[in-house]
Amino acid sequence: MGIEDFLSSGNPRLDSQLRFSAEIDKMTGIYRRTMLLSGERRENDAEHSWHIAVMALLFKEYCVEEPDVERAVKMLVVHDLIEIYAGDTFAYDIEGNSSKAEREAKAANRLYSQLPSEQGAELRCLWEEFDAMETVDAKYAACMDRLQPLLHNTLTEGHTWREGSTVRAQVEERMKVIKEFMPEVYEWIRKNLDRSVETGWLKA
Amino acid sequence: MGIEDFLSSGNPRLDSQLRFSAEIDKMTGIYRRTMLLSGERRENDAEHSWHIAVMALLFKEYCVEEPDVERAVKMLVVHDLIEIYAGDTFAYDIEGNSSKAEREAKAANRLYSQLPSEQGAELRCLWEEFDAMETVDAKYAACMDRLQPLLHNTLTEGHTWREGSTVRAQVEERMKVIKEFMPEVYEWIRKNLDRSVETGWLKA
Repeated sequence: MGIEDFLSSGNPRLDSQLRFSAEIDKMTGIYRRTMLLSGERRENDAEHSWHIAVMALLFKEYCVEEPDVERAVKMLVVHDLIEIYAGDTFAYDIEGNSSKAEREAKAANRLYSQLPSEQGAELRCLWEEFDAMETVDAKYAACMDRLQPLLHNTLTEGHTWREGSTVRAQVEERMKVIKEFMPEVYEWIRKNLDRSVETGWLKA
Repeated sequence: MGIEDFLSSGNPRLDSQLRFSAEIDKMTGIYRRTMLLSGERRENDAEHSWHIAVMALLFKEYCVEEPDVERAVKMLVVHDLIEIYAGDTFAYDIEGNSSKAEREAKAANRLYSQLPSEQGAELRCLWEEFDAMETVDAKYAACMDRLQPLLHNTLTEGHTWREGSTVRAQVEERMKVIKEFMPEVYEWIRKNLDRSVETGWLKA
């Protein structure tokens, strides 16, 4: 008796939803550059997605425009799903980022075609909205996606920055959406970047 | 320069939100009984919470009453946070479950007092609503919290059941909310339980 047999409900639509649910467990095997705060290992996409979804419940008050938090949370839990096939692209990897859009579009086709079409379309739209960073909800979600790794870097002595010989201007560019959308939070980031440069974790 | 210093924004409210964000990374160190589908290790609470939050986007159509999916997702990303201090209690651990309520209430006091009071209260209410399993959204969330481990058990040859010498009646009791709230999904579960008993993964 194989796995295929065990997964058959008799309803092809339900089957595809159950299979998709099993497929996305692969997010636990997609590792990011960021370390867990325990220092034990790098975090994976499942952990990261969960972490920023919870953070989105906390920081709305600092936004220049009010986001729909529940929509942002929904966006955040699915925003990295395409990395199951496209892999994680490190924010400061120039070469990786030049091929990112094409790789991710292919991955999205492969991933979302596994769902009933209207559900695949809904999840894909959420990812595209996130990626375009144009709506208020997407901007807020993007801020969480940048704040959490910065928090981790700050608390793991600049681990990812030191490893990648990252330059301050690269981080500032990445944090631009927070600067514009959550200025008070950016002030805290700016102070941390100052100190990270002083301490040598980040290049000037 | 210590971590404490790095985390100071000058705004005590923002500080507490940032500290809480760092604290909840401990969810990545709370291991459950369920295996990852890769078989590599047990899954942790962060991964589990994320996984069922995404699943909640997919299965609403099988519910006898229509849940608010976005509220259920929000509930699911926070429903296990108290395990940071209370630990994970295995669903079929009789002794562990007898002290669960008291341990978790203490953990909730400790955890949510770290947030600005209205935010702590909001997250605590979501957890309490989930735990009481009385509202439509909480029932749907509870179904996801039971469906995902069953899916994992089915796909890892009954790993957790075999390890715990679990009896079918225990699983049926645990799946009762799905039986009542998502009868078609329960039919798939029932079939899987039949086969799991036949195969010897689960005791009759």
